[in-house]
Amino acid sequence: MARSLGRIYKGFQRLGSLSSTQTQLRHPPTTVSVRGTTFVRTMVQALPSLFFSKPRDFSLPNSSWGSEMMRLYEHYNSQCEVETEEGEKQEGPWRRLPSYNRFLKYATGGVYLSKIIQSKARLFTRNIRDPGAAFEYVLFVNSEEQKCMCIFQAGHLLEGPPGHVHGGAIATMIDTVTGTHATILSGPVMTANLNINYRRPIPLGSTVLLESSLDKKEGRKTFISCKVTSSDGSKLHTETTALFLSINFSQLLLGE
Amino acid sequence: MARSLGRIYKGFQRLGSLSSTQTQLRHPPTTVSVRGTTFVRTMVQALPSLFFSKPRDFSLPNSSWGSEMMRLYEHYNSQCEVETEEGEKQEGPWRRLPSYNRFLKYATGGVYLSKIIQSKARLFTRNIRDPGAAFEYVLFVNSEEQKCMCIFQAGHLLEGPPGHVHGGAIATMIDTVTGTHATILSGPVMTANLNINYRRPIPLGSTVLLESSLDKKEGRKTFISCKVTSSDGSKLHTETTALFLSINFSQLLLGE
Repeated sequence: MARSLGRIYKGFQRLGSLSSTQTQLRHPPTTVSVRGTTFVRTMVQALPSLFFSKPRDFSLPNSSWGSEMMRLYEHYNSQCEVETEEGEKQEGPWRRLPSYNRFLKYATGGVYLSKIIQSKARLFTRNIRDPGAAFEYVLFVNSEEQKCMCIFQAGHLLEGPPGHVHGGAIATMIDTVTGTHATILSGPVMTANLNINYRRPIPLGSTVLLESSLDKKEGRKTFISCKVTSSDGSKLHTETTALFLSINFSQLLLGE
Repeated sequence: MARSLGRIYKGFQRLGSLSSTQTQLRHPPTTVSVRGTTFVRTMVQALPSLFFSKPRDFSLPNSSWGSEMMRLYEHYNSQCEVETEEGEKQEGPWRRLPSYNRFLKYATGGVYLSKIIQSKARLFTRNIRDPGAAFEYVLFVNSEEQKCMCIFQAGHLLEGPPGHVHGGAIATMIDTVTGTHATILSGPVMTANLNINYRRPIPLGSTVLLESSLDKKEGRKTFISCKVTSSDGSKLHTETTALFLSINFSQLLLGE
């Protein structure tokens, strides 16, 4: 039920490309008449970064990321921009997706929507501030192959059975990855079914890969499959099929 | 993959029945010879509560529980002890299950197991201290009807789609409830499959009911089904079938 929304995703994309100038234009600072013109100008220039700063992108490396997480991140990140034979840089086959702890605050429509929902709400997978304690992950998308890859490092607050990741935490990552993938492929969707086969438990603290692939699209339905494997691909942890239904945004707000 | 362990569950049960005397016997305090006998006796008596205090049972009411959560809690809790016609109290059809933020610390075998796993590990569903922010829930079991009921109040840190509970958080509660139920019925188990149909999103902050029922047992397999409904039962949010496999405890520790 990631039910990620295309509009929100597009909002993220737009946000990622916003320059500081654009940020100022969207939130024009009021004039301050204290201590002369220079000071006023400095304050006005500083205001956007104080009050309208860019949100933290949780999918960028932090000090808690282990060597395996970093190695895989660099592997995919290096394929986001490639060099041509002429030495020019151009888009590569993969694209990293940013990730925030709140959908609406930073997305198109947020101003309207935030009146409806609780101001304290936070995205489930990004609700713990302590780096490395819970979900550390980054998603890459390959539009040509219609695939998503997620590198996931499972923190110590995700325990289910002794020393291993909770099945619900694994389901959460699967829903997040397949839901994001379905949104990219089909626009606003809602999770209709997750069928998860757990093959082998995931030790706490380990880094695993989630690979999401499009199976087919039929009308409003998007069928996705997802495998969770060890970081070297040698061990299969879970296999999942997921079904998403395209929705209108109003359906979600009305809870229908 | 709740893979809840029978031994651990039995440990909880034993713990629940421990008197303070027993706690002292299990952890005899050393004698302190300062400021006379009275002080020593007071300190010795205080030691168990300082260092060997009973853990917090998260399934008891707290100030964050809303009226619907409290009403349902009292409904099932009142059926845990009933009065006979002669006015005597006896066990009722339901039994409340205690819930802690760490399996091993308070369970049989914990002393041995805690050497193996990380000391900071916490149960996924009990890893946030702020009452009401994430998972507030309590489980009741009815042995005769082979059913489990869970009352679940979804906090603001469980957001997925705007204003609604993340599909992974719902899957987490389903895994927790069905896994606990399977453990009660079959001893140590591991989640093999969760097949979840999401019918209707759950608004953040609302209280819902999870009802887990035994479908059948076949050799090592325990088949459970689970429905998530609104607190008055009028709306169906999800329907799930779950399969659990009986395991040896060593299987889990070896990650096989």
